[in-house]
Amino acid sequence: MSVADKTDQISRRSFLEALGVSAGSSMMLRASAAMGLAAASTSCGGGGGSDANASPAPQTPPPPPPDDGGSLASPIPSDWPSNAGANKSVIILGAGIAGMTCAFEMLKLGYTCTILEASNRAGGRNRTIRAGDQIEEVDSNQICNFDADDNLYFNPGPARIPHHHEFILGYCREFGVALEVFTNDNKAALLHSTSAFGGQPQIARSMVADTRGRISELLANAVNQNQLDQQFSDGDKTNIIAMLRQYGDLDSQLNYTGSSRAGFEGQENTGNPDRESMLSPKQLIAIVNSNFWQSQQEFSQSIDQQGTLLQPVGGMDNIAKAFEARVGSTITYEAVVTQIRKTTNGVNVFYQEAGAAETSMSADYCICTIPAPVLVNIPNDFSSAHQSAIQGFQYSQSGKMAFQSRRFWEQDHNIYGGISWTDQDITQIWYPNNGFGQDEGIIVGAYTFGTTAGSNFASQSPEQRISSGTSQGSQLHPEYANEVNRGISVSWPKVPFQLGAWGISDPGILVNADGNIYFAGEHLSILQGWQEGAVLSAYHAVNGIVINDTT
Amino acid sequence: MSVADKTDQISRRSFLEALGVSAGSSMMLRASAAMGLAAASTSCGGGGGSDANASPAPQTPPPPPPDDGGSLASPIPSDWPSNAGANKSVIILGAGIAGMTCAFEMLKLGYTCTILEASNRAGGRNRTIRAGDQIEEVDSNQICNFDADDNLYFNPGPARIPHHHEFILGYCREFGVALEVFTNDNKAALLHSTSAFGGQPQIARSMVADTRGRISELLANAVNQNQLDQQFSDGDKTNIIAMLRQYGDLDSQLNYTGSSRAGFEGQENTGNPDRESMLSPKQLIAIVNSNFWQSQQEFSQSIDQQGTLLQPVGGMDNIAKAFEARVGSTITYEAVVTQIRKTTNGVNVFYQEAGAAETSMSADYCICTIPAPVLVNIPNDFSSAHQSAIQGFQYSQSGKMAFQSRRFWEQDHNIYGGISWTDQDITQIWYPNNGFGQDEGIIVGAYTFGTTAGSNFASQSPEQRISSGTSQGSQLHPEYANEVNRGISVSWPKVPFQLGAWGISDPGILVNADGNIYFAGEHLSILQGWQEGAVLSAYHAVNGIVINDTT
Repeated sequence: MSVADKTDQISRRSFLEALGVSAGSSMMLRASAAMGLAAASTSCGGGGGSDANASPAPQTPPPPPPDDGGSLASPIPSDWPSNAGANKSVIILGAGIAGMTCAFEMLKLGYTCTILEASNRAGGRNRTIRAGDQIEEVDSNQICNFDADDNLYFNPGPARIPHHHEFILGYCREFGVALEVFTNDNKAALLHSTSAFGGQPQIARSMVADTRGRISELLANAVNQNQLDQQFSDGDKTNIIAMLRQYGDLDSQLNYTGSSRAGFEGQENTGNPDRESMLSPKQLIAIVNSNFWQSQQEFSQSIDQQGTLLQPVGGMDNIAKAFEARVGSTITYEAVVTQIRKTTNGVNVFYQEAGAAETSMSADYCICTIPAPVLVNIPNDFSSAHQSAIQGFQYSQSGKMAFQSRRFWEQDHNIYGGISWTDQDITQIWYPNNGFGQDEGIIVGAYTFGTTAGSNFASQSPEQRISSGTSQGSQLHPEYANEVNRGISVSWPKVPFQLGAWGISDPGILVNADGNIYFAGEHLSILQGWQEGAVLSAYHAVNGIVINDTT
Repeated sequence: MSVADKTDQISRRSFLEALGVSAGSSMMLRASAAMGLAAASTSCGGGGGSDANASPAPQTPPPPPPDDGGSLASPIPSDWPSNAGANKSVIILGAGIAGMTCAFEMLKLGYTCTILEASNRAGGRNRTIRAGDQIEEVDSNQICNFDADDNLYFNPGPARIPHHHEFILGYCREFGVALEVFTNDNKAALLHSTSAFGGQPQIARSMVADTRGRISELLANAVNQNQLDQQFSDGDKTNIIAMLRQYGDLDSQLNYTGSSRAGFEGQENTGNPDRESMLSPKQLIAIVNSNFWQSQQEFSQSIDQQGTLLQPVGGMDNIAKAFEARVGSTITYEAVVTQIRKTTNGVNVFYQEAGAAETSMSADYCICTIPAPVLVNIPNDFSSAHQSAIQGFQYSQSGKMAFQSRRFWEQDHNIYGGISWTDQDITQIWYPNNGFGQDEGIIVGAYTFGTTAGSNFASQSPEQRISSGTSQGSQLHPEYANEVNRGISVSWPKVPFQLGAWGISDPGILVNADGNIYFAGEHLSILQGWQEGAVLSAYHAVNGIVINDTT
């Protein structure tokens, strides 16, 4: 548990060597499951606060990524025999993060890899929208009208990487994808409820400080007056009270009378004429009734949302481009899978390239990363149990919207990055974590990850989303009415070849292969909705195939 | 107070126009004081957690700064009449942030400005150390042996900018100084006490989560059992308990049995073989006795240390260079002030350039930003009250040390930026907030801002600091023994022309001019130890002179 206690540390390499190669396949599979790869019928993990992903619209192939960073190999479980794939072939369905991870690792093992990608770009939900890009939904098309600028981009899918998602971060390190901090928790951001505090947005710092203050005040007084069941020694009592005074910023009488931590009167606006007027502390019941504690204040405490978080400099798709630069030669673009069939010793995949007739390809293995809402409509030979699991697999209906604007949040309100919350459908406003101090920036005006909010968003036309998003955002920032512009949105359930933001059902039997057909994708991992989950699911599929070929 | 409530907002411009120009000097001075400029005998502000600054060693003049950012003018109180300085002259002592702010603003008003700078570089304690740089202390010299690389630098002075320090941030915006996030609060960083938890470092996330859990557990049970003086309605009681369950991650029985927020067993090391084993929650008394709550856990709650914080891309001295590019023609380098004298209508300043005889210069005004520990030894005509205030002015004894190293903190422990704490003299370890994923990085191995720690550090030779810093750092990171190298340190009380890290005494009478001699510097502001304080103090001095010239 402790960092200093290093001698007991089991490295992954020796761990897998001990269990996998020498002790055989079932042990290796178990080891992999323990490493965080999805195991049959275990948890769906994650839950609220996942992070959705990117769409397939016509784009020119990206240039090779920059490679000026580190050169360390990523910390993958690379104990697979390096010749495991000799004379073996695999068809990988989908060139998202899961599919490209499979190809990247299996090429090293000697497998002949082919990726069939339905869209004309790699990355899947890992996508970055810039000037001129097109967003295609099933019933609309949008062109991004942002100004052309390195800092004016929008990640409609995954947009942050927790510091302990070490496999995707390892690939960033290996590929030289530059990273910078992504901020979830900005004390200058806003918490807004249409029903609390008269609908007036509250500065996050004041809610956080006052919540700590009121909780500490109640408890410190209870301890001081021996009201609790638990009895403490005089020394412990003194120390607990001292801690609570510090925790809540209480005065010597154990009262919370406000705190400079909550900020000063007017501090949310630049040009604040007074740095010394303390805010009146909020009452406990007002804090409780605001319901901000239900998610907004606690959000950044969760293991996958707590700092430090990171983002690639210049856009999340730098990760996709880095993979593509390494496996792009295996990708057939605009190849829409039409049937997935089993053969005596392998698989036969039928697909259709743009403007061409249906054709097919055979291989020893298939790894299918196609999202369940798409896969459910592709004729296949899967077992009835697999078909049933795919049929019932639920996806988040999330979407996001972005605007270009003068950086009024920085210039007028000292907000640099981070997230404001509202109980309106837009749910969140994200301030850019890059290009600080420039004149213009991209503000994420909606991230509708709630079920109702996501469905409402999906049902709107792009124009309606802009209209309602602008109106709702104005409740937090009156500047919206005149300053945000060039709105663009992605509703994942309406994006062809995705039809959902991320999987939320239990992976169940889908983590088990069906014959020589293996399944992968974030939806089959313990980190659903995260790129790290896509990578873990890829390792799980590769591991299954390697075991099949080497035991 | 609320952002939405914009109609009542008083802009600084109209505020000063209303009070200053039309209503006369005393009103304008009061307005300035209310804006956060230091007022006579008001608070020293700040306190713990200030941020020290940079030294004067031989260097070639820096190139002009990049100017590719925004172009907005900084939000200064620029209501001074634009011709206020016609036919007036000012000698500014010190080319630090305060002195250069004075020159930058007064040149716009028509003043003839001369800055006398004792060292051969601009910036004062704003300094960035890179390959080949020299650190001169009163009894030692060091050469920085870092590899030459944009990301391998060390800010021994100021190193972070709170998001609401809007004047220094305004200059960054105006000058095009690119900014990125500085992380104070990384849940993956370590808290270490030689006496708590057997001397084993604790992961910050586990201390934070367990503290919340234990506090919530105690209070939720007390509320549930009606043990408190304060009686709540059934509805409020239910809601308070619901909030506390969320706050502490309590189970349905209101027990804290651990939380995924605290991380998983082994998660502090990359290659962790298990993502699902919950840590055992710490007991309340163990948390209390650890004393981590005294500063370490609460540090990033304070108004000047709460996120978002920022740093200039490439080093803090990009701010100094940006100022220098604009006022450099007014600076005489290596001009050591030897006497400060009053004349009938102005000032006469004596100084000595390198290798030259003492000479003197007269002007209408002097603005003296020389740190008190240096100023106290310069013969002058100040009032006895001013002399006495300078005599007694106390400074922090802080210093910092940095090493180059493989980024073991990222590669082996998933630590990206942020600060670890220890009760040893080194006090803090800072992980770099830039160059994530590269092979090598600069780790700040000591920030000795405690009085004892700072004095101990000052008394050591550079070699002793490296030796003890390495030894102490090893208690948190065993990698130190073999991996950190090229250590370099700055002890501010030993740096010529600084002799201290930042002022900690009440500014007192020094915020008032003595004849035509005005005083400025971070030590005379309500934000001692911060660059924003230096800027505010500069505005205060300029304002005093402008009022004198226009009324």
